[in-house]
Amino acid sequence: MSSAKAKRTGRRPGTTATREEIADAARALFAEEGYERTSFRKIAAAAGVDPALVVHFYGSKEDLFRQVMALPPEIADALGRLADGPRETAGRRLAEAVIGALENPTSRTITLGRIRCAVTHPDAAALVRETVTRDLGQVAAAVNDDQPDVRAVLIGAHVVGVALARYAVLVEPLASMSTSEVIDVVAPTFQHYLLDPLSE
Amino acid sequence: MSSAKAKRTGRRPGTTATREEIADAARALFAEEGYERTSFRKIAAAAGVDPALVVHFYGSKEDLFRQVMALPPEIADALGRLADGPRETAGRRLAEAVIGALENPTSRTITLGRIRCAVTHPDAAALVRETVTRDLGQVAAAVNDDQPDVRAVLIGAHVVGVALARYAVLVEPLASMSTSEVIDVVAPTFQHYLLDPLSE
Repeated sequence: MSSAKAKRTGRRPGTTATREEIADAARALFAEEGYERTSFRKIAAAAGVDPALVVHFYGSKEDLFRQVMALPPEIADALGRLADGPRETAGRRLAEAVIGALENPTSRTITLGRIRCAVTHPDAAALVRETVTRDLGQVAAAVNDDQPDVRAVLIGAHVVGVALARYAVLVEPLASMSTSEVIDVVAPTFQHYLLDPLSE
Repeated sequence: MSSAKAKRTGRRPGTTATREEIADAARALFAEEGYERTSFRKIAAAAGVDPALVVHFYGSKEDLFRQVMALPPEIADALGRLADGPRETAGRRLAEAVIGALENPTSRTITLGRIRCAVTHPDAAALVRETVTRDLGQVAAAVNDDQPDVRAVLIGAHVVGVALARYAVLVEPLASMSTSEVIDVVAPTFQHYLLDPLSE
């Protein structure tokens, strides 16, 4: 809600602003209430618009979830560029992209919202499976042709665990560590999962 | 519910059986419905007893959660024994204890239920933080005096992510891998987090 309001300030009212305000409201609700309890009516109320406008912009609830909970373009871009650099630093660059993204409020809400919804609703779970398999699978396959699917899910699992521990359950000292400290400690694990033999 | 029924078979009815049936019903509800939506009334209905009996056995909801969602003794014992063996195999033995435990239906329900409740309710989050800090913190401190608190939360985060991906969101190929395959792929990461320098 607060981010929707902040965005409204200094922006001319119009379709783009309204659409983005609805998206912000939907993300916050998916993250706080889960998939099932987030309704078009609640989203419309939070965004201060008519429920029909939410339907007009986003169609079904599944379509809405897919669109507003998609990985933000900057993360998708960073993942796409991962294979361009040296393999020796792939784990660190992946950690910078992923942990850096979680410091952004919108990306963090999307990540935690996806986890929360996936744990509690099959439709949301299917969408999250797609992402892990497709987006992280492409990253893993781009740097290593040995079992990229296993590598992708292990990396995804670690990202999910770190995101929950740091931002949702607030487990110390992880919750208070700086972004660069977190990147430092997870980078070797990402490097291992991307490039080392998977078992001893 | 089904496990409560299975337990009832072949066991003489009595206080111990009833108490354990209530615990089974409560675990299933915490895992499926979350902390907030799990009430004494629902637990009693699922266990086929009077709500007053649930209160009699377990007191407050927080006390009930603490007791029925405690780590099963066999996992607590395995964690406690970890420091006794050679350091070179500590990661593998931790993986065997943790991943092995997740194959047990009760331990799995407890683990997934704790995660689900911690993500959605502050009281449950506080209880989960306690466990990670205390139980995994003791394991980490027993094998390494360098930053055991950071090591404990990174291991906990990875366990949580793997448990969610494998058993809740059912991400392939992790969901279909055998227990020993999963142990093989996570053991090196646990070994790294227990004993290697934390940053490069």
